[in-house]
Order: sequence, then C-alpha cells, then structure tokens
Amino acid sequence: MSRQKAVVLVSGGLDSATTLAIARDEDFDCYALSVDYGQRHLAELDAARRVIQQSGAAGHRVMRIDMAGIGGSALTDFSIDVPQAKTPGIPVTYVPARNTILLALALGWAEVIEAHDIFIGVNAVDYSGYPDCRPEFVAAFQQLATLATRAGVQGVRFAIRAPLIELTKADIIRKGTELEVDYSLTVSCYSADAQGRACGACDACRLRRAGFAAAGIPDPTRYC
Amino acid sequence: MSRQKAVVLVSGGLDSATTLAIARDEDFDCYALSVDYGQRHLAELDAARRVIQQSGAAGHRVMRIDMAGIGGSALTDFSIDVPQAKTPGIPVTYVPARNTILLALALGWAEVIEAHDIFIGVNAVDYSGYPDCRPEFVAAFQQLATLATRAGVQGVRFAIRAPLIELTKADIIRKGTELEVDYSLTVSCYSADAQGRACGACDACRLRRAGFAAAGIPDPTRYC
Repeated sequence: MSRQKAVVLVSGGLDSATTLAIARDEDFDCYALSVDYGQRHLAELDAARRVIQQSGAAGHRVMRIDMAGIGGSALTDFSIDVPQAKTPGIPVTYVPARNTILLALALGWAEVIEAHDIFIGVNAVDYSGYPDCRPEFVAAFQQLATLATRAGVQGVRFAIRAPLIELTKADIIRKGTELEVDYSLTVSCYSADAQGRACGACDACRLRRAGFAAAGIPDPTRYC
Repeated sequence: MSRQKAVVLVSGGLDSATTLAIARDEDFDCYALSVDYGQRHLAELDAARRVIQQSGAAGHRVMRIDMAGIGGSALTDFSIDVPQAKTPGIPVTYVPARNTILLALALGWAEVIEAHDIFIGVNAVDYSGYPDCRPEFVAAFQQLATLATRAGVQGVRFAIRAPLIELTKADIIRKGTELEVDYSLTVSCYSADAQGRACGACDACRLRRAGFAAAGIPDPTRYC
C-alpha cells in the first residue's frame, strides 16, 4: 500500500522544521512548499532548503509571489522597521492575509498531487497577536478547502493540520529534539544576515532563545 | 467624505470587466488586481490593462505567482489540451484552488489599503462545473476573511461581492452594456492568440458568443 501524501509548509524556521518532522513521523510522504513572498529574511529560504534536504522530503517546491508589492508589514515593506522589543497588540511583523495565501497555495498543490493533509506550523501561544494563527482560523480554512476544490466536491475532506498550535516554544523544541530536528539549520530571526546568523534582539530571536532555555536544551543558533 | 475603496479582481475577460463596471457604478474607488498565474491566455492580461485604463480605476496591480509549476489544469499545464467542446462534470480548465488563491491575494491588498469590499466575477450559472464559483464557496471565504485578518479582529466585516453569481451570460452582457463596458477590449478565449483574437471554438468562446446572441447585442469579439 502506498503511503499517504501531505503538503507541508516549510519556511526554514524552527516551527516549520518541527512540523515537517512531525508529519514525517506520522509516516506521510511529505511534499514541502516554501513561499518566497518578498520577506526580509531570505536566509529563511536557504534554511528551508537545508531543513528539507536533511528531512528526506519526497518533493520540494519554492513559489514566488510579490507580496512585497503590497506592503503593509515590517517583513515585506522595507520602510517599516522590525521592532527590537515586544510590542503590544498585533505586531507590525504581521503580514496581511499571509497564512490564507500560504494555505491557498498549499491547497492547490495538494489537490494536484492528491494529498488530503496540509501541515502548517502556526502557533497560538507565543504569537497570540497574529489573527491567522488561531484555531478558529485553521478550522475555517479547513471548511473552505472542501468547498473550494474539485476533490472536495468529489468527497475528499481536507485536513489542515496545525500540530504546534497549542504548544509553547519549549514544548516545540522538546518535541523536535525527540524527532532529531537539527535546529542549527533553521533560521527564525526577522533580520538574519546573508549567512543566516540571527540578530538576537527581535521578537522571534527572543522567543526562540527563551524557548531553548525553558526546554533546558542547548541553543545551537548562530548569532551575529 | 472620501469614497469607500474596493479591490476588484480583473482578469481581462467579459465577466470581470462587467464586475469592475458594477463596482464603479456603486461609487467605489476601485483598486484592480490582476494575477498572472502562468495561464495560457496572457492576452487576457493585456486585455485587463486596457479594460482598467478605460474604466478609470484608482489603482492597478499585477501579481505574478507560478501556479504553472503546480500543473493540474489545461489552463496552466501545457501538456493538457484545452477541450474544443463541452465536457461533462468539472472541466479540465479548472485550476486547482484558483479562486481561493485569488481572493487570498485580494484580501491581503484590501487589508493594506483599508478596503472592506472585494469584488470577484464568478458565475455559478454558465460555469456550474467549477466548485469555487458557487455561492457557498463565496460565503465561506467571507467568513474566513474576518477571522484571518487584523482588520477582522478589530471589527471590520469584509464583504466578498460576486454580483454576477446568479446571472446568465446574456444578463451579464446586458448589464455591462448598460454600464458602457467596451467588450471589444475583453478577451475570454482560453486559446487567444498574441493579438487577443479568439479561437471561437473553446468552451469560453461558445458561452460568450451564445451570450451576445441571447442578449440581442452585436458581438464585438475579434476572432482568428
């Protein structure tokens, strides 16, 4: 019997590397999708390639879309500074409709390769400021996926899998370490340099560093 | 008082040109979004530019995404022939998750420019084979849009407007003619040549030609 396929969104960060390892551990044939949406941290995409290579995914695709042309986020609009400290409310690093766009692209690919499971590494605990990281968003997209597709009309029920959604950063790191994720390959920093070295100061760096500390696991991150 | 903004998806076909005219007639400042998803009929994008220019839209953006790399449709995968006759069930010209992807991109732009209305020219009557042209799909996306965005969390209710959804092709053509749409600028053909001339034989051409005949309006389409 052939194995089930899954599309896994892989950005090259810690969360998506862990998500990929979980999908693989569930015995899926993993098709990794990385999206280049004009983000600041292109180092992430290099990291994605390394993570995927190490994980033995069945396929990898990088799609480019020009969200930088839309602006509205510190991650795609270079006129907005990435904050160096925790900010209240929804962060300026929020990218408008990002996860809707990523899941829509993943859904298109899933339909073509006949995958019914789509994995995304969203997390509602540490990044509670992002609306499209909440369980109700994931549930709404799952409902949409069935209505939106030929496969859905023909009876397929897509599952949008967000295995990290209720985990703390420390839980995620513990889980990934169990599954032998090599976190030295991943890049979380919003302002990583061309070699993928982290700034150590942005929100993403702070959360990541605190996560390793809380998990009691040595932090392999390369800092500038 | 400043006018309300709307994002309008404009492909360059007859339906989206009519949708743009309806949005303008409702007194919206229209921001036209065209998506180049590797479709066969690039002539459509040229048509989109002409239609938008004629309509006096407040802004126009073309986004490129490489759905051609995904394949799975006669419109993006050049190894699948465009059928020359009506086929039963969901047509091979169905593009996996296309309208989900288009609406997701439109939602991202809408959030940035503070538009709350998104217009899409889907139609459930003539193209009943496409799952993502049905009212239940549009309703599900509207629900998702509010959950997915910062604007939604802050109280904005997005409206996904599909004013053609229950109209026949003849009704659409009558409505557009009332609103002075110049249909000679539009391209519907799946296999149009580089000058935008239509094949006259594909599904889209047949529906368009029959629509003009049923509306009793001369067909300005340029055929090869």
